[in-house]
Amino acid sequence: MALVVQKYGGSSVADASCIKRVAQRIVATKKAGNDVVVIVSAMGDTTDELLDLAEQVSPLPPGRELDMLLTAGERISMALLAMAIANLGSEARSFTGSQAGVITTSTHGKARIIDVTPSRIQEALAEGQIAIVAGFQGVSQDTKDITTLGRGGSDTTAVALAAALSADVCEIYTDVDGIFTADPRVVPLAQKVDKISYEEMLELAASGSKILHLRCVEYARRFNLPIHVRSSFSAKEGTWVVSNPYSEGTEMEQPIISGVAHDRSEAKITVVGVPDKVGEAATIFKTLADAEVNIDMIVQNVSAAATGRTDISFTLPATDSQTALSVLKKIQQQVGFESLQYDDQIGKISLIGAGMRSHPGVTATFFAALANAGVNIEMISTSEIRISVIVGQGDVDTAVQAAHKAFDLDADQVEAVVYGGTGR
Amino acid sequence: MALVVQKYGGSSVADASCIKRVAQRIVATKKAGNDVVVIVSAMGDTTDELLDLAEQVSPLPPGRELDMLLTAGERISMALLAMAIANLGSEARSFTGSQAGVITTSTHGKARIIDVTPSRIQEALAEGQIAIVAGFQGVSQDTKDITTLGRGGSDTTAVALAAALSADVCEIYTDVDGIFTADPRVVPLAQKVDKISYEEMLELAASGSKILHLRCVEYARRFNLPIHVRSSFSAKEGTWVVSNPYSEGTEMEQPIISGVAHDRSEAKITVVGVPDKVGEAATIFKTLADAEVNIDMIVQNVSAAATGRTDISFTLPATDSQTALSVLKKIQQQVGFESLQYDDQIGKISLIGAGMRSHPGVTATFFAALANAGVNIEMISTSEIRISVIVGQGDVDTAVQAAHKAFDLDADQVEAVVYGGTGR
Repeated sequence: MALVVQKYGGSSVADASCIKRVAQRIVATKKAGNDVVVIVSAMGDTTDELLDLAEQVSPLPPGRELDMLLTAGERISMALLAMAIANLGSEARSFTGSQAGVITTSTHGKARIIDVTPSRIQEALAEGQIAIVAGFQGVSQDTKDITTLGRGGSDTTAVALAAALSADVCEIYTDVDGIFTADPRVVPLAQKVDKISYEEMLELAASGSKILHLRCVEYARRFNLPIHVRSSFSAKEGTWVVSNPYSEGTEMEQPIISGVAHDRSEAKITVVGVPDKVGEAATIFKTLADAEVNIDMIVQNVSAAATGRTDISFTLPATDSQTALSVLKKIQQQVGFESLQYDDQIGKISLIGAGMRSHPGVTATFFAALANAGVNIEMISTSEIRISVIVGQGDVDTAVQAAHKAFDLDADQVEAVVYGGTGR
Repeated sequence: MALVVQKYGGSSVADASCIKRVAQRIVATKKAGNDVVVIVSAMGDTTDELLDLAEQVSPLPPGRELDMLLTAGERISMALLAMAIANLGSEARSFTGSQAGVITTSTHGKARIIDVTPSRIQEALAEGQIAIVAGFQGVSQDTKDITTLGRGGSDTTAVALAAALSADVCEIYTDVDGIFTADPRVVPLAQKVDKISYEEMLELAASGSKILHLRCVEYARRFNLPIHVRSSFSAKEGTWVVSNPYSEGTEMEQPIISGVAHDRSEAKITVVGVPDKVGEAATIFKTLADAEVNIDMIVQNVSAAATGRTDISFTLPATDSQTALSVLKKIQQQVGFESLQYDDQIGKISLIGAGMRSHPGVTATFFAALANAGVNIEMISTSEIRISVIVGQGDVDTAVQAAHKAFDLDADQVEAVVYGGTGR
C-alpha cells in the first residue's frame, strides 16, 4: 500500500461538476489500495472575488486580515470536496493548514514553511479516511495567526506534507498533460517529457515555465520526493520529476535537451556611463537588494578606455521596475552614472538540458538557430544546465520555435491539449 | 471606560458599503473611550450560496464538512470588517470562533457552547485593538473540529463572549429600532419598548418574536448581562433587556403589558378517540419526544363518559409535522386511538406582560377584544406572564390588532421603520 499525496489546483475544482470529477479520481486512488492525502486550492475565481471585496473596503488591507480573508477560499473548496467524496461512499475529512500542522513564519502573504506536524492527518489515515488539506495556508509559529504562502503555495503545501508524511509520490494535477519541451501554445509540436531531474525542473521554473513553482521543486529535491505532474482531465501518465531520470539510459554521453522555456514578464534596465571604479556595481546592486528587487541576468560592458566609463544592464521582473528605477535615481549623484535606460519589450529564451556544459556544440547550435531565424540576441547568461538569451519581445515565438526544431524536439504530430485556468 | 460587545447580523454587513458604515460605528464607539469587541455574521446571502454549492455536490453532506464550509462565511465578513476599520485608522484584529476560545459540544450544525476562554481577545484589547469575532461558530472540546451553533448562533456567541469578558453591555444590532409592542408590519401603530425583562423577552421569543433568539436571552439572564437591541441604520436608543426594568417605576401594582406576539409557523395535530386510560397520553408524548418533535401547547378534552375516549390536541412547528404524523401512525394500534387530524392553517397570538397573573382583568380584556373582533379561539395556554391562544390563520392580523388596541398599546403615530433581511 502506497501513500499518495495529490494536489488539485483552482481550475480542477472550478465548480460543482469539476469537484465531483476530482472526487471520483480520489476515490479511485483510494480503492486501488492507497492511503490518500489531497491538497486543494480555492475554486477557480474565488481568490479574485475575495480580493475584489477587499479592495472595496480598503485600498491597502492589513496582511493579517487579507490572509484571513483569502484562506476562506480553500475552506470552501476542501469542505465541498470532502462532501463530494462522502457522497461516493468513501470517508473524507477536511483540514485547514493550521489543523494539518503547517507551521510557517509570520510574514503575511508570503509566509515560509518552518515545520509540518501532521498528526491529525496521520490519525485520519489510520482510521481509513481520505484527508483533504487546504493548500496555500498555514499558521504562524510566533503569533498563531493564519498565514498564506504566496505564489506556488498550494504546490509547496503538497510537497511539504508529502515529505513530512514520507509519501511515495506527490501528484500535482494541472490542466496540461505534464511538462513539455516548450509551451504548446507557442510550439504546437512540443512533446511531453516523461522524466526530468529536479535541477532541470528548477531551471525550467526559473526560466518562465509556470507548471511548477520553484519553491515546491526545491522542497522536493531537498527531501528527494518524486513529483508526478499530470492532467486532472485525463488518466495519462504525466511527467515525473525525480533525482536521476537518466540512470537507465544508454545515451549518457549525449547532451539531453529537456526543453525550451520562455518568459515575457521581465524588463531590462541599463545604467549608462557608470564610472569604472571598484565598488560602483556593488553599490548599485546593494541598493536594489535593499529595495527587495529581484535581479535575474546581469551584463557589464567592457569599459571604454577613452571615457573610463561602462554600462551595466540587468533584467528583473517588470513588476519591480518602478521600484528599481526610483531607488536608482536616488543614488545617481553618489554613483555618478549618466542615465538610466528602460526596456520592457524583451523576452527571455532558455535552453535547458543535463550535460549541456560539456558539449560546446549545444551553444553553437542554439545561436545558429536564432541567427538563421533572424533573431538578434541582446544578453546571454549560462549555468551548468541552461543557456538563456534576451531577445526582442516580438521575436520570442520565432526564437522558441527555431530552437525547438534545431534540437530535434518537434514531435511527429501535435500531442498537447491546453486547458484554461491557473491555480495558486 | 466600558467594555462594549456589539453584534452585527448578516443584513448589517450585506455588502462593502454596509461593512464600511458598520466600521464607522465601531470606530466611533472605540473613540468614545470604550473597549470594543464585535461579533459578526456572514454577509447577506453568503450562507445560502454556500448551502447551494453543498447541495450541488451532495444531497446529504456530512455535518462536519457542512460546518467547515459554512464557517467560511464569517471568515470573509470578519476579515473585511477588520480591513474597513484599519482603513479608518483604527487597529482591528479578527478571530475565528476557535481563536476566540468558543468551546462547544461536537454536535455539528447545532453545537452548544460549553466554555469561553477568550485569552486572545483579552490580549488584543489590552493592546488597544478592536477585536472582531466570527459569530455562529466554535471548536468542539472533544474532537477539535469546527462547529456551528445553529439558529440564533451569532447572538449567542455575542452574549457568551460578553459574559466571559464581563462586558458592560451586549449590543445586538438589527434592522429594526428595537423590540416593539407588536410586529410593526401587522400593527403600524406598534411602539418601541424601552426596557423589558429577560423573562418577558423569553416569552416573546418563544411566542414568535424573531428579534432575539431564546438561547441568547437565556444565556444573558443566567449571567445577568444587559442586552441592548438597536438598529444598525440609526443612532437611536433601542430596547434594553435587563433583569428588572421596572425598579424605578411608580406603577408596580398595575399590570404591564409588554407586547403582543404572533406566530404563523405552527400546526395543530389532534389525536382523536384516545382510550381514557392512565399512561396513554404519556405514550403519545414519549413517542414524539423520542422523534425530537418539539411540542408547544397541549389541550386534552374532558373525556366523554359515554365512550370512555378523549381527544388530545397539540401544536408543534409545522416543519416537524410529517415526522410527528408518521411516528404517531406507528403507535395507533398500540394506543388504540381512532384517527389523526392535522391543521396547519392556524396562528398563535400571545399577550406578554409582567404581573399578569395577579390581574384577572387582563385575560378578560384579551378575550373580549378577540370576541368583539369576531375571532374564534381554538386553544388557550397561560404562564405567569403570558397568555397564548390559537386562532385560524386568517384571523391572526385582526386578533393582534384588536389586542394591541385593547391594552392601549397603539402609539399616536407610526414610529417603526422596518428594513429587510435576516441574519443568523
